[in-house]
Amino acid sequence: MSVPAVIPYKPRNPKTRLSCVLELEEREKFAANMLCDVVVAASDAGCEPFILSTEPFSFDGIRVVEDPRGLNESLNDLLAATPGPLLVIMADVPLASPDAIRRLLESRADVAIVPGRGGGTNALYLASANRFRVSYYGTSFQKHRQYAEEKGLTVEVVDSFLIHTDIDEKEDLVELLIHGTGMSSRYLRELGFVLSVEKGRVGVERKRD
Amino acid sequence: MSVPAVIPYKPRNPKTRLSCVLELEEREKFAANMLCDVVVAASDAGCEPFILSTEPFSFDGIRVVEDPRGLNESLNDLLAATPGPLLVIMADVPLASPDAIRRLLESRADVAIVPGRGGGTNALYLASANRFRVSYYGTSFQKHRQYAEEKGLTVEVVDSFLIHTDIDEKEDLVELLIHGTGMSSRYLRELGFVLSVEKGRVGVERKRD
Repeated sequence: MSVPAVIPYKPRNPKTRLSCVLELEEREKFAANMLCDVVVAASDAGCEPFILSTEPFSFDGIRVVEDPRGLNESLNDLLAATPGPLLVIMADVPLASPDAIRRLLESRADVAIVPGRGGGTNALYLASANRFRVSYYGTSFQKHRQYAEEKGLTVEVVDSFLIHTDIDEKEDLVELLIHGTGMSSRYLRELGFVLSVEKGRVGVERKRD
Repeated sequence: MSVPAVIPYKPRNPKTRLSCVLELEEREKFAANMLCDVVVAASDAGCEPFILSTEPFSFDGIRVVEDPRGLNESLNDLLAATPGPLLVIMADVPLASPDAIRRLLESRADVAIVPGRGGGTNALYLASANRFRVSYYGTSFQKHRQYAEEKGLTVEVVDSFLIHTDIDEKEDLVELLIHGTGMSSRYLRELGFVLSVEKGRVGVERKRD
């Protein structure tokens, strides 16, 4: 039986830290493209992805659970109702590969984590979801590790930069342009984003016709 | 026979982008501690590490090759003289774990790469070093991939955030404080560095007595 994979998603006004380079409508499309990439990777890894959305939202062929509450509240209710395994993966990790996701699923630990840059948690694989509670925001990686330890759950840190790389800021787009092969990197290129190198450091710039 | 692992190193005035938080002497000690962490990880992974230093430098029990030229010049001469396998790993990836390094060594590709953040190349495993030439700086990851393709060499991208995370700037210290278990993270803590969380975002601050 395939493992359910929940992808929390905020369709409206997402990725505000990209406002400097993307208009509102572009940010919404970009976020939807990243979500798509994650859905495809999770499916290809053998999961059954579904979306936990803060607002009404539809996605071809994928179940959408709507919950307007905060991420922790909605996820923790879901966890409490899930005695079996569950993958929680963020919608802004478009580089996530099926291989990287499979390495999570293959973990023998009770809790397998891929940390995000800056102390976050980009993916969590829970062998028995109802034994765990999430606490996102801030140093969630440390909070999750600590919670597991308090509950006597074993933890494995899964070493993947593809899932570690969350796309929040302009600089992060560099990674997507370099390593991306999915819809979100294609969308960025369509919008005119290209790599730029200045004084040996790599950034992005947007060429407009 | 263990695989040689070359670690390029610049002992004098290293890591200038950390000048905002570390004095010159501290930067030199910090860089030496990071080097140490990489040496230990490479040894534990079964490699035989040696240091390619731009200046006279000694390191207990480890061979040091001195070459004042630029990184590409000195490394390419070394590659040309090495018909067998060689690991090239940067000195500023102190989170590198033996497991992550072993995943490189186990690659069946001619060239296995762990990209750095921002298009760099943090580790390269070459099955036959004299068939390859390096070109660091800028988007070296892309240049290395392209060179391999031109030469008909197979390439594998090894997915490790522990090696992907190079420590160049203040923000990078967050990763070391969260995930580090070696000498360089201990040194940072001794200097008074701690995590700080402001508006949900994680940074570092330095507490001075």
